[in-house]
Amino acid sequence: MNDQHIVSAFDRDLEAIQAMVIKMGGLVESAILDGARALESRDTELAEKVRDGDAAIDALEDQINEEAARCIAIRSPIATDLRIVLSVLRLSAALERLGDYAKNIAKRTTILSGTNPMTGSDVTLRRMAREVQAMLKDTLDAFVQRDKALAEDVIQRDLDVDQMYNALFREFLTFMMEDPRNITSCMHLHFIAKNIERMGDLVTNMAEQVIYVATGEIPRAERPKEDLTALHGPDAGPAGGA
Amino acid sequence: MNDQHIVSAFDRDLEAIQAMVIKMGGLVESAILDGARALESRDTELAEKVRDGDAAIDALEDQINEEAARCIAIRSPIATDLRIVLSVLRLSAALERLGDYAKNIAKRTTILSGTNPMTGSDVTLRRMAREVQAMLKDTLDAFVQRDKALAEDVIQRDLDVDQMYNALFREFLTFMMEDPRNITSCMHLHFIAKNIERMGDLVTNMAEQVIYVATGEIPRAERPKEDLTALHGPDAGPAGGA
Repeated sequence: MNDQHIVSAFDRDLEAIQAMVIKMGGLVESAILDGARALESRDTELAEKVRDGDAAIDALEDQINEEAARCIAIRSPIATDLRIVLSVLRLSAALERLGDYAKNIAKRTTILSGTNPMTGSDVTLRRMAREVQAMLKDTLDAFVQRDKALAEDVIQRDLDVDQMYNALFREFLTFMMEDPRNITSCMHLHFIAKNIERMGDLVTNMAEQVIYVATGEIPRAERPKEDLTALHGPDAGPAGGA
Repeated sequence: MNDQHIVSAFDRDLEAIQAMVIKMGGLVESAILDGARALESRDTELAEKVRDGDAAIDALEDQINEEAARCIAIRSPIATDLRIVLSVLRLSAALERLGDYAKNIAKRTTILSGTNPMTGSDVTLRRMAREVQAMLKDTLDAFVQRDKALAEDVIQRDLDVDQMYNALFREFLTFMMEDPRNITSCMHLHFIAKNIERMGDLVTNMAEQVIYVATGEIPRAERPKEDLTALHGPDAGPAGGA
């Protein structure tokens, strides 16, 4: 009876914390899409909005950390319950970093506002960002539904993001070699491409956490993505070659 | 009496976990120094060693995660004790990412092995890496000794790393504009510089966790560093301007 009470109290806590994670995820999704739109149209006002919005994302992470710590301290969860709470902390930490990347893209947009859009690459950048946002959305759905298959699908889709990045890297190199006046803006656009590619890696790590929550197993082979980026250079093999 | 027993059991667990974190930190310090040395001398063998060494770092993170979860489940720590365990998890996650960055530098070193060292920038890159390694060492010491002042000192020193990165960014732009044949290798060297700058941000976040462990307060103003990088461009203000 008392156990029953404790269990359901934990479930209520967990639901409240998960709701905060979903809310945080929604803010990050908007930041990614708005950041990409602001970049494509060199819209410094929208970029400003994205920069200002990051504070709310950081605040939610703090709330989630406090609630999760409170839940662990009061409910003393073990086994699966504890695993879920610890994974929630990793998910919110990843969301906070995704928010930082979106904010970083918005800041570079402000820097780039003087330069002309490079039609081809700007469209690809926005497509990359939209794919990462879709991956994030599915990862959060997979988390709520404990859907291993959906999370595995997200991990696979990150390869497309890597390939888009790979193509952009070569494109920027060409632009810079063609005309040195392109170098500065290409350096910033390349950073943005790199940030979006890293965002895809972060979402992949989140999807792995979701699989861990659903199954208790971390899919080791997929980790870590970050060190694949060295192989994205023109004088190296295709993405995923490591 | 029983409480007394539980407390000391927790302390023993915590000491064992902290020992693993220190061991992990030592491996990461070596990876940073070896990675920088391999880059400066284009030593692909040493670079290979750094790449292979990352597996041991990842394995330690898994061990720490398991031990920490076991400790929480068995000891049900609360208040300060729980705060310390949760911070240990964040520290080990940061160390794992530092290891990935060192591995990434080693991979780019292999890619760059065909190119000539660019004396000036290679020396700066190694100085940056050595500073980040020293910051990490002090952060781990500050963690063990719960030394708030030392952790605050580390956070301040990250500004030097940002400034070294800022100088390199301009240097690479110049190299590329002077001779398009420098563009590809400068793109990779620039990535390496960026990675080291991000490593400094990660160590700064770790130092903030150490302050949190020591005081219960996270120094908000210092967070997040990552989104300052957009201001490191030549057409932007000095680092730290955001």
